[in-house]
Amino acid sequence: MNKKIALAVVLLAFTGHSTADEGMWTIDNFPSDRVEEKYDVRIDDAWLRAAQLATTRLENGCTGSFASPDGLVLTNNHCLWGCIRNLSSAERNLSDKGFMASAREQELRCPGQSISVLVDLEDVTNNVSTATKGLEDAAANNARKAALTGLETECEQAADGAFKCEAVTLYNGGQYFIYKYKRYDDVRLVFAPESDIAAFGGDPDNFNFPRWCLDMSFLRAYENGKPASTPNYLQWRSGGPKLAEPVFISGHPGSTDRLLTMTQLKMQRDVVLPMWLLRYSELRGRMLAWQNTSDEAARTVQQRIAGIENAIKVRRNHLKALHNDSMLAMKEKQEQQLRAAVAADSELQAAYGGAWKLIDEAIDTYRNFYEDHLFIENAAALNSELFNHARTIVRGTAERELPNNERIRAYTDAALPQVEQRLAAERPIDREYEKLRLTFSLEKMREWLGPDSKHVHRILGKESPQDLAAALVDGSKLDDPAVRMALWEGGIEAVRNSADPMVRLALEIDPQARALRERFENEVEAPLTRGEEMIADARFQIYGSDTYPDATFTLRVTYGAVKGWQEKGELVDPFTRTSRLFERATGARPFMLPDTWLAAREKLDPDTPFNFVATTDITGGNSGSPIVAADGNLVGLAFDGNIYSIAGDYWFDPATNRTVGVDSAIMLEALKTVYGADELVKELTVVE
Amino acid sequence: MNKKIALAVVLLAFTGHSTADEGMWTIDNFPSDRVEEKYDVRIDDAWLRAAQLATTRLENGCTGSFASPDGLVLTNNHCLWGCIRNLSSAERNLSDKGFMASAREQELRCPGQSISVLVDLEDVTNNVSTATKGLEDAAANNARKAALTGLETECEQAADGAFKCEAVTLYNGGQYFIYKYKRYDDVRLVFAPESDIAAFGGDPDNFNFPRWCLDMSFLRAYENGKPASTPNYLQWRSGGPKLAEPVFISGHPGSTDRLLTMTQLKMQRDVVLPMWLLRYSELRGRMLAWQNTSDEAARTVQQRIAGIENAIKVRRNHLKALHNDSMLAMKEKQEQQLRAAVAADSELQAAYGGAWKLIDEAIDTYRNFYEDHLFIENAAALNSELFNHARTIVRGTAERELPNNERIRAYTDAALPQVEQRLAAERPIDREYEKLRLTFSLEKMREWLGPDSKHVHRILGKESPQDLAAALVDGSKLDDPAVRMALWEGGIEAVRNSADPMVRLALEIDPQARALRERFENEVEAPLTRGEEMIADARFQIYGSDTYPDATFTLRVTYGAVKGWQEKGELVDPFTRTSRLFERATGARPFMLPDTWLAAREKLDPDTPFNFVATTDITGGNSGSPIVAADGNLVGLAFDGNIYSIAGDYWFDPATNRTVGVDSAIMLEALKTVYGADELVKELTVVE
Repeated sequence: MNKKIALAVVLLAFTGHSTADEGMWTIDNFPSDRVEEKYDVRIDDAWLRAAQLATTRLENGCTGSFASPDGLVLTNNHCLWGCIRNLSSAERNLSDKGFMASAREQELRCPGQSISVLVDLEDVTNNVSTATKGLEDAAANNARKAALTGLETECEQAADGAFKCEAVTLYNGGQYFIYKYKRYDDVRLVFAPESDIAAFGGDPDNFNFPRWCLDMSFLRAYENGKPASTPNYLQWRSGGPKLAEPVFISGHPGSTDRLLTMTQLKMQRDVVLPMWLLRYSELRGRMLAWQNTSDEAARTVQQRIAGIENAIKVRRNHLKALHNDSMLAMKEKQEQQLRAAVAADSELQAAYGGAWKLIDEAIDTYRNFYEDHLFIENAAALNSELFNHARTIVRGTAERELPNNERIRAYTDAALPQVEQRLAAERPIDREYEKLRLTFSLEKMREWLGPDSKHVHRILGKESPQDLAAALVDGSKLDDPAVRMALWEGGIEAVRNSADPMVRLALEIDPQARALRERFENEVEAPLTRGEEMIADARFQIYGSDTYPDATFTLRVTYGAVKGWQEKGELVDPFTRTSRLFERATGARPFMLPDTWLAAREKLDPDTPFNFVATTDITGGNSGSPIVAADGNLVGLAFDGNIYSIAGDYWFDPATNRTVGVDSAIMLEALKTVYGADELVKELTVVE
Repeated sequence: MNKKIALAVVLLAFTGHSTADEGMWTIDNFPSDRVEEKYDVRIDDAWLRAAQLATTRLENGCTGSFASPDGLVLTNNHCLWGCIRNLSSAERNLSDKGFMASAREQELRCPGQSISVLVDLEDVTNNVSTATKGLEDAAANNARKAALTGLETECEQAADGAFKCEAVTLYNGGQYFIYKYKRYDDVRLVFAPESDIAAFGGDPDNFNFPRWCLDMSFLRAYENGKPASTPNYLQWRSGGPKLAEPVFISGHPGSTDRLLTMTQLKMQRDVVLPMWLLRYSELRGRMLAWQNTSDEAARTVQQRIAGIENAIKVRRNHLKALHNDSMLAMKEKQEQQLRAAVAADSELQAAYGGAWKLIDEAIDTYRNFYEDHLFIENAAALNSELFNHARTIVRGTAERELPNNERIRAYTDAALPQVEQRLAAERPIDREYEKLRLTFSLEKMREWLGPDSKHVHRILGKESPQDLAAALVDGSKLDDPAVRMALWEGGIEAVRNSADPMVRLALEIDPQARALRERFENEVEAPLTRGEEMIADARFQIYGSDTYPDATFTLRVTYGAVKGWQEKGELVDPFTRTSRLFERATGARPFMLPDTWLAAREKLDPDTPFNFVATTDITGGNSGSPIVAADGNLVGLAFDGNIYSIAGDYWFDPATNRTVGVDSAIMLEALKTVYGADELVKELTVVE
């Protein structure tokens, strides 16, 4: 990032004022006046409500939108990689070949996939502050969780099973909400293009622009075995957006870190990011070399590699952002300004002045056992699907014995249906790949904790990581959903008597893992949460509420316009077109076009807009989000950001941060001309 | 590193005063008075001269010491990994099995290995400043190199072939020297233990302590086919050093960065280190997965993996050091103090005041094309032995046509014998491993330069990295020394007519690579060198000459004492003993003991000191250095530092920075009791 441009950035989150297209706004606090002033369009409550009800959350971390009244859902192809892999086999490679259901009965259920639609939300900040009032940090931390669990349960009981209720923390503790969702647990694959066109350019082009990716797919939501009735859907515009047209993105951005203190940012820079990058770069290398050992190995890891490469690119640009000392100095200055404003008022100072010290001490403490906590409680030492199941079974059966509001929140009554759905899902597990990642993670545990760590001794004993991984994976039967469910239903007694080596290991390390969890909750999470709540309140009192919270994988609407940016003195054209896709193709992955596209070349209009950029403020989790015009019609599909968008985790730079989307024009043309998907096109009922 | 301890560190390099055991001192400026004051022993010129003549430089980046009058050289086992691999085959694995020549005629010549002994040195600072006086930076840069090339040639001509002469830059340009070496090009392997005991604990224990590594080997220098006569050797003390005894290390530390400016340090932190770590962590992963594909693959990469893991550990701790904002603030303060002292004197200000701006601008420029320069001119895109040979042949034959002092300095008359030795050396090249690393590096080039880079287009065209790597490696015959030498002797005509694909590629990209080299030399190296010279002069004038230069792989002597350090409130015992080696062994690598050791267990004294730590200030390149007592006898063999020693690249922390050495007691006992190496022990003529 150009430092001079960066210095001009206004960090709205800190000051509440900006003319930039910044902000991942909650649905109840959208800045309609500011948008009207800048773009001369009115986004009213009806518009927002329509967008809300047409937007779906994919529970694996993406967004989608209803595209017809019959439950059709548009999302990215890359959001369905897990589903596509789970539905593929050596004989049927849906990733390479793509998929189109020729009739509804041929639509394929995605194992374990759910989608949700936000139907209502309720501010419960007062309930939470009442529950924690007067308590010291660790007790308040427990009381807060118990209160949220209780509110969720009340909400679900009131809805009598019609809705799922989730507690949401906004503004790092400035507000607490209960969000009410309609959930669909039967979701089926309708259409997926070949991954060679969906992710054309692969990792080299990822987060770059110009770009030519048909990163789209369709799912369908089912209820009671029939396509769901979804009257709230988005109509499509066939022509795509115009240059400079204002656009809006409704979706579920996953997380941002714009409200972190300097101490928290430096923890990311010094510890979290370097460690993650070192480990996952090595895992990437292991997977790349391993995929050459067989076709089946290649099929198993192909999209997992793409996923890791995406995450590496994100985090190395996070680290790069945090090495931008000018930006950090501006963050520091803003923190000092807030602290000075607090200190200037004796009441504020008494209430909030201690927040930063609380956070500093919590982070100092965390630095001392971050690696232990990461590897043992967060299970980075045991990178394995089989172990994940074992941990869930061991933990979940034990937690179920406790009263609902004393449980770990991953196992509350509100959370258990999802837990069970994951345990019961038929998802193939490749044992060789399991050994690869488990060997890797055990070796990394020994590398980072050191061979003399008590945790390392407990897990490895005198075995080598490779031998232990092989014994655990070969001996475990947890790849069978029936075995998992039998243990789950058998409860703690069945678990205690299980001879499965993964279950034995999960049982064996649970006490030390729980001890680390408890230490984390009491010594890190509790003071951090309290400190963050204090800062959030101080900010509301000083800067007002005309602002937006960090992303939390909950519904947000962001606004902007179709617009390029200056790159080395040249304006980047915000649209790409079909002609250059064919020029760019080399015949070798990741620049290889599928046969369908090569065959359709002459029939395609070379001038059709393909991908485009907009100034909207999005992040991971927004993948699959509809890009909507002021008239309420869908004009594109968000699937990426440009390289500068990655620093958006910490600050929004309006000069360079861009969303990358698929134009509705190419989506429709590809469906018609490349794939002959006439039924789908008809279902989309396009607005001309 | 504990920040509070770190803050107390005195950075001698910046201020000239310290009571710490800091400094990699040149032989002509050893602080004998300071040592006498602290340790009550006198290190006189005769002592230093004896150490100098007994110390050898291994041209592959290590140190050794003469151990007998018949050319016997002690060094680390890990310094000979290349030699051991080159002498091994599927049938004869010298790494797993170790090696001991039962008679002199069975000693095995290490292909391409040379060692050197510094016999004399001459200050030529005035010659260089005369040559560059009044010239602007780029012209001065060329004139400086030409002057150094000329001085080397003069020196070699005067010696009539008896010595090799090398220009040496000290204090980042504060002094220039000609160092005169006696070189031995026939060096043979005499003894190597199994790598399982030499590197016991592997990567997990590397840079850690307590430690149990017999990281020793013996070479022998030959002249005219006979063992060299080396009257200047070190006598061994059988008992090793005592607790708190002062010790001295004579060796060739490779490089340190203690004199860099803040701008230069941040270039390391922001760009150089993260990029290197990401790339090599991935390569590590590829190698780890690939070694499982066959025994031969495992043998090919086993020690290369160890080498990469070592380098990763170094650099990740470099990055950690540069994330220590307190230390960086101290560096910044010291830089400001020096700048203030310069500014306070109008003459100094006129002469040196502009230095920092020169450096800042040079680094800013470099940031703009660092990746291009790294991948194309520094050939990070072409990580391949075969390509290295091709580049040498293409560059060297062209450069030979130029007058000596106009050549790239790697190809001056003084340098050519080493170049030719490397080309002629019989070293096995594994084609599958070549493909692995070449595919990797081509992919990384595309990742970091982007698919639209003109360099990427030039090298890849429409081929995939994997296909291109396979074609280049399968098609090249440069693994045959005779083919290489025919091209080398055939000169530019033979090279131009070669059909070898590696040669064609090296020819094809040479113009663009040279253009990047020229840009680097003129726009980065020239102003950097000038700026660094100015700062060095300013420092001499303000702080005096009672200081030491950054390491430059030239002879240095460092001092200290055998002493532990405080780790989490506990004093670490500076000695380990044999008993715990056996307790630590698990039977699985890297904690597996060789059969020889298991068989000898009962005969070994469990209390023999094994490894120990000392406060001496060393770095990479010092591997294999003799640890010498004040009485001139060898008491140990340096092979590592503790984890805190890695930050020593930027500053010396006397509280925690420790050298790790092999005790002479265990070396002698192992030779006698484990290996029955009676002849060797006799040759060592041990002092009791």
